[in-house]
Amino acid sequence: MKILIVGGNGTIGKTVSAHLAKKHEVVTGGRTSGDVTVDIADSNSIKTMFKALGKVDAIVCIAGEAKWAPFKDLSEEDFYIGLKSKLMGQVNLVRIGKDHLNPGGSITLSTGILADHPVVMTTSAAMVNGGIHSFVKAASLELENSIRINVVSPGLVEDAVEKYEAYFPGHNPIPMQKVINAYVRSVEGKVSGQIITIYDL
Amino acid sequence: MKILIVGGNGTIGKTVSAHLAKKHEVVTGGRTSGDVTVDIADSNSIKTMFKALGKVDAIVCIAGEAKWAPFKDLSEEDFYIGLKSKLMGQVNLVRIGKDHLNPGGSITLSTGILADHPVVMTTSAAMVNGGIHSFVKAASLELENSIRINVVSPGLVEDAVEKYEAYFPGHNPIPMQKVINAYVRSVEGKVSGQIITIYDL
Repeated sequence: MKILIVGGNGTIGKTVSAHLAKKHEVVTGGRTSGDVTVDIADSNSIKTMFKALGKVDAIVCIAGEAKWAPFKDLSEEDFYIGLKSKLMGQVNLVRIGKDHLNPGGSITLSTGILADHPVVMTTSAAMVNGGIHSFVKAASLELENSIRINVVSPGLVEDAVEKYEAYFPGHNPIPMQKVINAYVRSVEGKVSGQIITIYDL
Repeated sequence: MKILIVGGNGTIGKTVSAHLAKKHEVVTGGRTSGDVTVDIADSNSIKTMFKALGKVDAIVCIAGEAKWAPFKDLSEEDFYIGLKSKLMGQVNLVRIGKDHLNPGGSITLSTGILADHPVVMTTSAAMVNGGIHSFVKAASLELENSIRINVVSPGLVEDAVEKYEAYFPGHNPIPMQKVINAYVRSVEGKVSGQIITIYDL
């Protein structure tokens, strides 16, 4: 399979890319690094990338940001950071990317446990994650040419524990191998419309 | 209680308003009708309304729109109709409204079954509903002065069956009384951070 991994150079992205590259042709995309350049917050950038890339068999997105801050400090503009990047960035990747997938191809988006178990300072991040979950269920009903779509929603991954554990009191860290396996289930399996949660609460 | 009901003149809003008005002082808000004028898609309009209205004990929102269309026909701009209205409109009502609530007051938002059980043509509508569900859970962790927040998510209500049943194959209609009761549970009860689902599948 030829697999595009947007955000293939982040904490999770790098590990997932390395794993999938053992069996597949992996192309990584990122704003400043990767095999191809793309900023998912800009739909023209997505279009340009696919024009250069041609058809692929799988699209994996492990990119997108949202602002973390106390709710009382988040302005309307702050909310739009997440709406433009992690929410509409991933939606646009599906909107545009579906026409650059071979029949039977797949799309795998990424969210996180905040959608279902938010913590303080995550009104914006939780919101975009929850939006993607419902979007994936809805989009799976309409994608043509046997194209599948799923989303991987991990808890706090063990590689990020040191940096983030103070924000996730009592959360059990998720082994990176389980996160890798979730992406493999979506890319190499046959499921569609699934929210593949990796929670350990 | 003094209760602001934004969207108090729609199908559900009218019934909920009439019920709550039996025991409470109800002020309805709407774009073109109601006791006060407000367009939730415009945060300045929300601010102006609250300046005129003063403090209230409960805010209920039964307003907000999103575009229904086949996924392949929805443009990026089409998605922003729902993001600006039903999603950020409700978020802005919370952001601004929380400072116009008396201590112990409540906020009740509205979504629908599409968040969890989408149907064809609802990628945008499902997405904004799912976003609000996660937002409400997250916001409930941070609201001060004992302010509560919940969201009511009804299935296809019986009053709308004739108009919408073709879009919801096999969905069992929800009696309007159950919808009214869900709003009453949020406004007069003590729960917070709840997604009050009224599904019958």
